Amino acid sequence: MKIAICQSNPIIGDLKGNSAKILFRYKQAVSDGADLVIFPELFLCGYPPLDLVEKKEFRKAVKNAANEIAFQTKKVGLIFGTISEDYEDKVGTGVYNSAALCYDGKIQFIQNKTLIPNYDVFDEVRYFESAKDVFVHEFMGEKLGISICEDIWNDADYWKHRRYTTDPVQKLVDGGATLLINISASPYAYGKRKEKFEMLSVLTKTNNLPLVYVCCVGAQTELIFDGGSMCLNSTGKLQMLGKTFEEDYFIFDNKKNYSEIKEVENSFEEEVFNALVLGLKDYANKTGFKKAIVGLSGGIDSAIVTYIAAKAFGPQNVHVVLMPSKYSSKGSVTDSEKLIENLGITSENISIQPVVDKALEMLKESFKGKDEDVAEENLQSRIRGIYLMALSNKHGYLLCTTGNKSEIATGYATLYGDMCGAVSVIGDVYKTQIYKISNFINRNEEIIPKEIILKVPSAELRPNQTDQDSLPPYDLLDKILKMYLEEQKEFEEICKTIGDANIVKKVLRLVDMNEFKRKQTAPVLRVSTKAFGYGRRFPIVQGWKK
Amino acid sequence: MKIAICQSNPIIGDLKGNSAKILFRYKQAVSDGADLVIFPELFLCGYPPLDLVEKKEFRKAVKNAANEIAFQTKKVGLIFGTISEDYEDKVGTGVYNSAALCYDGKIQFIQNKTLIPNYDVFDEVRYFESAKDVFVHEFMGEKLGISICEDIWNDADYWKHRRYTTDPVQKLVDGGATLLINISASPYAYGKRKEKFEMLSVLTKTNNLPLVYVCCVGAQTELIFDGGSMCLNSTGKLQMLGKTFEEDYFIFDNKKNYSEIKEVENSFEEEVFNALVLGLKDYANKTGFKKAIVGLSGGIDSAIVTYIAAKAFGPQNVHVVLMPSKYSSKGSVTDSEKLIENLGITSENISIQPVVDKALEMLKESFKGKDEDVAEENLQSRIRGIYLMALSNKHGYLLCTTGNKSEIATGYATLYGDMCGAVSVIGDVYKTQIYKISNFINRNEEIIPKEIILKVPSAELRPNQTDQDSLPPYDLLDKILKMYLEEQKEFEEICKTIGDANIVKKVLRLVDMNEFKRKQTAPVLRVSTKAFGYGRRFPIVQGWKK
Repeated sequence: MKIAICQSNPIIGDLKGNSAKILFRYKQAVSDGADLVIFPELFLCGYPPLDLVEKKEFRKAVKNAANEIAFQTKKVGLIFGTISEDYEDKVGTGVYNSAALCYDGKIQFIQNKTLIPNYDVFDEVRYFESAKDVFVHEFMGEKLGISICEDIWNDADYWKHRRYTTDPVQKLVDGGATLLINISASPYAYGKRKEKFEMLSVLTKTNNLPLVYVCCVGAQTELIFDGGSMCLNSTGKLQMLGKTFEEDYFIFDNKKNYSEIKEVENSFEEEVFNALVLGLKDYANKTGFKKAIVGLSGGIDSAIVTYIAAKAFGPQNVHVVLMPSKYSSKGSVTDSEKLIENLGITSENISIQPVVDKALEMLKESFKGKDEDVAEENLQSRIRGIYLMALSNKHGYLLCTTGNKSEIATGYATLYGDMCGAVSVIGDVYKTQIYKISNFINRNEEIIPKEIILKVPSAELRPNQTDQDSLPPYDLLDKILKMYLEEQKEFEEICKTIGDANIVKKVLRLVDMNEFKRKQTAPVLRVSTKAFGYGRRFPIVQGWKK
Repeated sequence: MKIAICQSNPIIGDLKGNSAKILFRYKQAVSDGADLVIFPELFLCGYPPLDLVEKKEFRKAVKNAANEIAFQTKKVGLIFGTISEDYEDKVGTGVYNSAALCYDGKIQFIQNKTLIPNYDVFDEVRYFESAKDVFVHEFMGEKLGISICEDIWNDADYWKHRRYTTDPVQKLVDGGATLLINISASPYAYGKRKEKFEMLSVLTKTNNLPLVYVCCVGAQTELIFDGGSMCLNSTGKLQMLGKTFEEDYFIFDNKKNYSEIKEVENSFEEEVFNALVLGLKDYANKTGFKKAIVGLSGGIDSAIVTYIAAKAFGPQNVHVVLMPSKYSSKGSVTDSEKLIENLGITSENISIQPVVDKALEMLKESFKGKDEDVAEENLQSRIRGIYLMALSNKHGYLLCTTGNKSEIATGYATLYGDMCGAVSVIGDVYKTQIYKISNFINRNEEIIPKEIILKVPSAELRPNQTDQDSLPPYDLLDKILKMYLEEQKEFEEICKTIGDANIVKKVLRLVDMNEFKRKQTAPVLRVSTKAFGYGRRFPIVQGWKK
């Protein structure tokens, strides 16, 4: 059977646009001689549709769109992800996350999703009920065993700890499936593609069945979908692999032999860089922004964000603003100018000092008798925020925030200051990882000036300030943060590795007490298994202390 | 049986403080001659604990705290809500939302929650598994049928549409329960207490059984719990009712006859006003803020917020700032001064004009050739935000935002400007409702000056501006918003009521396109069935249009 894998990029809720993408590729696949054409999970409405699913008129529109697509099919089969509804169901929502198989002008078969994920960034129990059963469907001589994303993540042979008691894929195997199909929308995190492949390899080998695994691509606000669709043969070998971080379309023939593909994942630096470019590009494309603006401080974070913006928007559409104060080092301007030249972007330089001075003059009476402190520091950052937002409002730039994960974790950022912006581009990347990425960017030539990479990190909000006045060294800090946030290690475990319990306690406390800032952050592009955002939900007001 | 109802206010995660509250009341109840002492759902850890539940060390600490409490019990029974774990459970989380019944020094019986809510503000499937079964427990001659919150919300006799197929309370009845107990943590929304009572009345009458319904009180970030615990006899009559919006403790004897209570809910204005005072007070108490600051514009919104703050913090702890510009009307200062006098709060007046002028001077080159627009308007609002945050940072004030629900819904607010602050006090109250509440506040004397109530709403960011330049009249707007947001009506339904499809389309579009602003708003105190915040989850980037 010749199977067209359509690794496409939907817009959530844009039923017209997504329908057009399905029909375009279906026609192409028909003329390419395919027997079956497959799109990812919930492709018709985009994933995740969130509370749109609760709107009756939205579900109705999805149903109509699905039927219209089906009406245009002929002999060649078409599978796409959609929402379906059981109107007879008197208890619960009666709404399902489904795969629709269409041919001969209508939907011939619907398989609903059985395992409904409800952890981290997944909220599917909120919307979808679990399939009552699974069935194999015979089509063109193959017995198709169709499952949806999470359905394939509960293999008893692979997982030590399972989330669910049922295994829908096992049921499909027991039901005589000759070809497994999984349509998926699984958000990217570094390391996950390798894990997915290993799991799918065990599954196909154990069951002696080939698998077509069709993935979503594109970013949806904070979630990035990396593509990398996979076709495995019945001995667990990878036969075809979709492109990563871009749309792809290719035909897999399960009767043919392909040379085995062994590598599924690039280096951390390359993967994450590509993910962030796609994340920013899609945020802009899908909201209509054509140009970006970044506040350039002379530090590594804003330099990297500017380079990512230049890749996402094209350098001619990126504008940067230098906003020195009396505490800014000379290098903050000269180093930035070098970067601007290297990238070929436009820039302007507007001092914040006159406005800072005027504001402090107006506040003088109110500040009387008080020492200089964080109030004066934040004020500078907030005047910069005002400049950037004024330019964004006036000229229609998308403002990119420049805070990294180490800063957002510890609250080392100013609310309504450097936290201003529509997207937090590197908010899921630790400071030490930022250096790695900058070395990757500079692998062939010096794009990020070495002065920027080598300088001591500083917010430059008071004389001779450095980040390490307030925070432990980044090497140590990031090690603690990674254990606490991604690896979900406990206090005692972290202390055992780090040694110094006081530092660990201080860092964990900073993370816990800054939930209020993160509530008001821009959406953070997610590239790790645990990002600040939708998948991490802690009470803002709380008294838990270890 | 004499039952002590402990309607107490926990702090999420503060196991020490919550344990102390339990033991204090237990001892009091023992000396008051109670047989059984009952605390609300998850009282020991506070509700909702969110991702704290995913921390092993947190669950362990909860377990230890529960055992320590149980160790102090003697003959008198004690029921409180806690987390329990089934370590033998090899699939899923094995974690339960439980009621622990303790006496004679240990936990004698645990009933886990069966119905796990996962809609609106509830995310419990993320953390908790469903009880495998329910059991009646005999204690001091009564067969106790213990259930937890949602468990009691699936009565086949009351609901036309049920969420769940199982009914744990029915099982308890069938199991021979002589007394029903429900421990609950059910967030406040106006109208809900009446609905709860009606449901419980049907349930007790139908089953001919008395019910003790123990509710949580206090605010947890955006969620407000209103208390109002209820004791019903077996004919569905309300015998005792806990105080609302404050802690309460009282003893109910199920063998005694009480005079029937018929009213469970006050007027909208009174209820919502009390809810907001509690919401703001608890945010401050539980985070350690002693003083509040509000930017006073001369409009009704900031006036109401200031009054609520004065009630929550005491007038001596509320400071307001008048920040006029060249577009401010004379009344913006004089009317504010009247309010300041009425409330007995402190104030200062700092013009934003010199800083606005300086900022525009610095931006002059960048704005060249462009007309004045929203950029200049937002700039003024953001300078006000900078003043308020500077004073908050310098003096430790909690900054209250003043935007109402009509504004937040339509995006008629400035990001990093008037949206600055730790808590959105009236972000779940429509503009037309604000007027009702101000009339309630003024019911005995003029506290909110009538000039403030009568003036035409304006942001005063350009000459002669009024809100209605950009928005439909508030009466109409709020009607549309309420249908769209709370009643979840569809476009066609709303048009049928409103008539003008263009206005409806415009309003719905404004709501949909301003998700990005709401992502960055301060937590909004929730008083309706659908507030902006945790219980409403729409994609920021999306293309759905009706």
